[in-house]
Amino acid sequence: MKAALMFGAGDVRVVEVPDPVIQKPTEALIRVTYACVCGSDLHPYHGLADTPEGVSMGHESIGVVEEVGADVRTLVVGDTVIVPFAWSDGTCAFCRDGVHTSCVHGGFFSGAQAEKMIVPYADGTAVVVPAGTDESLMPSLLTLSDVYLTGYHAAVRGGVTAGTTVTVVGDGAVGLSAVLAAKQLGAETIILMGRHTARTDLGRELGATHLVAERGDDGVAKVMEITGGLGSHAVLEAVGHMPAYEQAYRIVRPGGTISRVGLPQYEDAPVGFGSLFGKNATLTGGPAPVRAYLEQILPQVLDGTINPGRVFDRELPLDDIAQAYRLMDSREAIKVLIRP
Amino acid sequence: MKAALMFGAGDVRVVEVPDPVIQKPTEALIRVTYACVCGSDLHPYHGLADTPEGVSMGHESIGVVEEVGADVRTLVVGDTVIVPFAWSDGTCAFCRDGVHTSCVHGGFFSGAQAEKMIVPYADGTAVVVPAGTDESLMPSLLTLSDVYLTGYHAAVRGGVTAGTTVTVVGDGAVGLSAVLAAKQLGAETIILMGRHTARTDLGRELGATHLVAERGDDGVAKVMEITGGLGSHAVLEAVGHMPAYEQAYRIVRPGGTISRVGLPQYEDAPVGFGSLFGKNATLTGGPAPVRAYLEQILPQVLDGTINPGRVFDRELPLDDIAQAYRLMDSREAIKVLIRP
Repeated sequence: MKAALMFGAGDVRVVEVPDPVIQKPTEALIRVTYACVCGSDLHPYHGLADTPEGVSMGHESIGVVEEVGADVRTLVVGDTVIVPFAWSDGTCAFCRDGVHTSCVHGGFFSGAQAEKMIVPYADGTAVVVPAGTDESLMPSLLTLSDVYLTGYHAAVRGGVTAGTTVTVVGDGAVGLSAVLAAKQLGAETIILMGRHTARTDLGRELGATHLVAERGDDGVAKVMEITGGLGSHAVLEAVGHMPAYEQAYRIVRPGGTISRVGLPQYEDAPVGFGSLFGKNATLTGGPAPVRAYLEQILPQVLDGTINPGRVFDRELPLDDIAQAYRLMDSREAIKVLIRP
Repeated sequence: MKAALMFGAGDVRVVEVPDPVIQKPTEALIRVTYACVCGSDLHPYHGLADTPEGVSMGHESIGVVEEVGADVRTLVVGDTVIVPFAWSDGTCAFCRDGVHTSCVHGGFFSGAQAEKMIVPYADGTAVVVPAGTDESLMPSLLTLSDVYLTGYHAAVRGGVTAGTTVTVVGDGAVGLSAVLAAKQLGAETIILMGRHTARTDLGRELGATHLVAERGDDGVAKVMEITGGLGSHAVLEAVGHMPAYEQAYRIVRPGGTISRVGLPQYEDAPVGFGSLFGKNATLTGGPAPVRAYLEQILPQVLDGTINPGRVFDRELPLDDIAQAYRLMDSREAIKVLIRP
């Protein structure tokens, strides 16, 4: 089959690899019908050392079940399924807590940018799309494998409810998803910090009430002005770099919450009296347990309440995935849908 | 009047200073009847540079109102009042949010280890003890100025409810208060990490179900063993030093919460994928807005439901306060009550 492999920074190629084979009775084999490139794929795209054997890429997918292991109970061949970016058994203590990304049998996918893929713990991981679902909904359904529900996780953990003032740091696809999620959860004021007008324009359509293009001191001053000097109840940090974190703790309101879903590109950060502690700010977030939210949000996509697939502004065949990385890296595209 | 001043590390003396005088119409003057030494007073006791003019000390007090400014409405001369360690106007946006320690007119007391003290924003700050309250309740009522409600804040922010597994890091008076608060909030398993048997024995009486004397890797292993390998839903960090923070993130359960009330003696700390982010752990806490809880918890002390004053194991007159600091610094005393 064809699969996208990364061989080093900036070097993604589609190559022929052996078809994956079911090895455990709890696995399913799917033919990937929709995949995409994630902002987090750009981290290795910038920094991966030369890797002659290649690294399989991609963790967001919709597919059609081609084969199931002997113990799979909830999927049958022919089902269309949404596959979250992390697999999970659905039964362990952490899955029962709704922290599926910490499942004791769990792991993070790589290899969704390919024609086929193995889904471990298929019953616990995949969610079936009702038969007959209109094909036009597939991009929005694909966002339930990661990006929209990552934004949703940010908003949920940020404690967003009716009346909350929310600031979203980052205008990438996750940030835009966080705007939409905050809107769905009833936020009144939604400030989007970003400087790419194609993105912030979409952010405005998805629910942002204010746009702040400034960064650093100027960005802080602007948010404080918008919030009447009080700061933001919830800051949804959808970038992962230190300046975004610094922005976040400077604009969070005393007693408020910073909810991070951008993969941190740092380990240590300010958390002492001068940043978080002094104003009783809460820091939360992490890899979104999208499986915990998926069945609840699926109907909202199916009935058209939300259309999170709007973050896809380009579509390319798998063969052209190198171009998809380039377009996202150069910010010419917000998020590229891939059709294997 | 007499007041305790610190002139450098290890050097606390009672000296004669001018009586404080009301300068604003919102202030009250109280005669301090009960005060105490706080674990946080030991930080300058260890590290204060020589200060010939002296630094006034103490922030926990009960007193009798001697005089009120023209705008004070809720206090009258002769009232016995509990004075939280931070003053607050009670009316600003942050006070209305319950984050009184971030009050726009607020500040932190120093000068309660003295015969008299000015209470700024007296209406918003002080809480009247009902006339006729038995004198024997005063030590427990004094803990509502800081230590018990700081432990309570840790437990509330840690999300402690019925069935929660809680680990308290630190067996000082705040840690012991956190144990009692966790018990009150319904925690089933309460693990107290500490190595001073006089303290952990009291911790056991206040509600701890397990004691862990080990630290570092051994301490982590012990907590993981007690929690069936899952970790602790809530970790209440009542120390403020980096090893306590490291302990906390290593034992917190995925999706769980670290709630800090020990004044951090660091600014930067691990918060990335390997510490907090990867397991969706939440970091919260800060200076306890005790005023937000005080009126709610006061009846529990008055009716004997809780007896948080048990953390006081010594009582000394103000004249002997240097000895109180020594006893707490050497851990011969958990917490010393001071009678000016």
